[in-house]
Amino acid sequence: MHTLIHHPLCAASRSVRLALAECGEAFVLREERPWAWRAEFLELNPAGSTPVLLTANGVALCGAYAISEFVAETAPSSPSNRYGLFPGSAEERAEARRLSDWFHRKFYDEVTLYLVEDKLFGALSRQGASVEPALLRAARDNLRYHLSYVGHLMEQRRWLAGPTLSFADLAAAGHLSALDYLGEVPWEEFPAAKDWYARLKSRPSFRPLLEDRAPGVPPHPSYADLDF
Amino acid sequence: MHTLIHHPLCAASRSVRLALAECGEAFVLREERPWAWRAEFLELNPAGSTPVLLTANGVALCGAYAISEFVAETAPSSPSNRYGLFPGSAEERAEARRLSDWFHRKFYDEVTLYLVEDKLFGALSRQGASVEPALLRAARDNLRYHLSYVGHLMEQRRWLAGPTLSFADLAAAGHLSALDYLGEVPWEEFPAAKDWYARLKSRPSFRPLLEDRAPGVPPHPSYADLDF
Repeated sequence: MHTLIHHPLCAASRSVRLALAECGEAFVLREERPWAWRAEFLELNPAGSTPVLLTANGVALCGAYAISEFVAETAPSSPSNRYGLFPGSAEERAEARRLSDWFHRKFYDEVTLYLVEDKLFGALSRQGASVEPALLRAARDNLRYHLSYVGHLMEQRRWLAGPTLSFADLAAAGHLSALDYLGEVPWEEFPAAKDWYARLKSRPSFRPLLEDRAPGVPPHPSYADLDF
Repeated sequence: MHTLIHHPLCAASRSVRLALAECGEAFVLREERPWAWRAEFLELNPAGSTPVLLTANGVALCGAYAISEFVAETAPSSPSNRYGLFPGSAEERAEARRLSDWFHRKFYDEVTLYLVEDKLFGALSRQGASVEPALLRAARDNLRYHLSYVGHLMEQRRWLAGPTLSFADLAAAGHLSALDYLGEVPWEEFPAAKDWYARLKSRPSFRPLLEDRAPGVPPHPSYADLDF
């Protein structure tokens, strides 16, 4: 069985948990506090970041990109995700990858880095590093831009990259669910994005995420509510 | 034939040019200045960044991740790269992807962003945006750390991800060749990294990059020298 080294509020780890569950892969979780820079963890991943997947064969795979492609290549098809994480033609797969990258890179740099990692990991590591209010405001503005982009895609598509669920949806959900835990997502202003998220949130793969509790950081009251 | 929309000093575009050439794919180049935020370009790629590959079928594929995987899936095998961009077992492919991500994300964030994009694109766009000297110093320190990591990998492997050339080498070469154009790489301090780069630099796929000239920015004298 695989072991996923993660942190409950790491957006990239969340996307991989969803991917493993959608593909019917059994795995156990092991929590890591990436800000602690433990030597044993740095030996597994010199980048020092979660997620890391320890395969049943004892190989360490690092990062959402490498892990999602590995799962897409090796997981048996499952009833909940029979078209795989990157479905369709080569061009359609490229679109799912463009949007996975959009969330794991652009959205991360513009939103998650400030509203989750700097703010929360700073608080959890007790180094008292606080984020400048101007940066938090900018990140919240950026979040609104990204939510309107989700809404724009939803005008033409059932899922982010096309007619079928793909890793793009799971990448986006990894970030938005971490922000939602913190009560940072203004869902009411973006009904199309909210509808898309509600469909994801009610999938069985999502259930374990909704039970997450980060020590010292209680979730927003509506976090686990399917009728939010 | 594919059209690659790029900028001569965009590291991610360089890695894709190398990948297309290694896979024997014919393509033409179209130059874009990403800092100009042209509406026509934003319609092709809402992220506003290069590279974008326009396929022979007229589909726009955005970003080094989506394009490299597309080329790996669709290009015929070629004499110069008969094992493909992500060679080997699923675990070995994951290692090539970890290192591609290392350079296109971590190295970019810690080095290329400051020493190439902020500095050069700022100058080229004539907005006079200059980068703080402290940031340039930090980026140069980071570059040394990454060069020593390349040397560390070279103690155990012929190419970055294993015994065979992979997209990880081309991703790294995209960044290092852009920095080398600007004379920013202290090769003499890192002989193992230099030896690896010299082997890449003498491959036929590299030749067009060595002929690049960015308007207003002459290359460092040793940039195109195979015996640097």
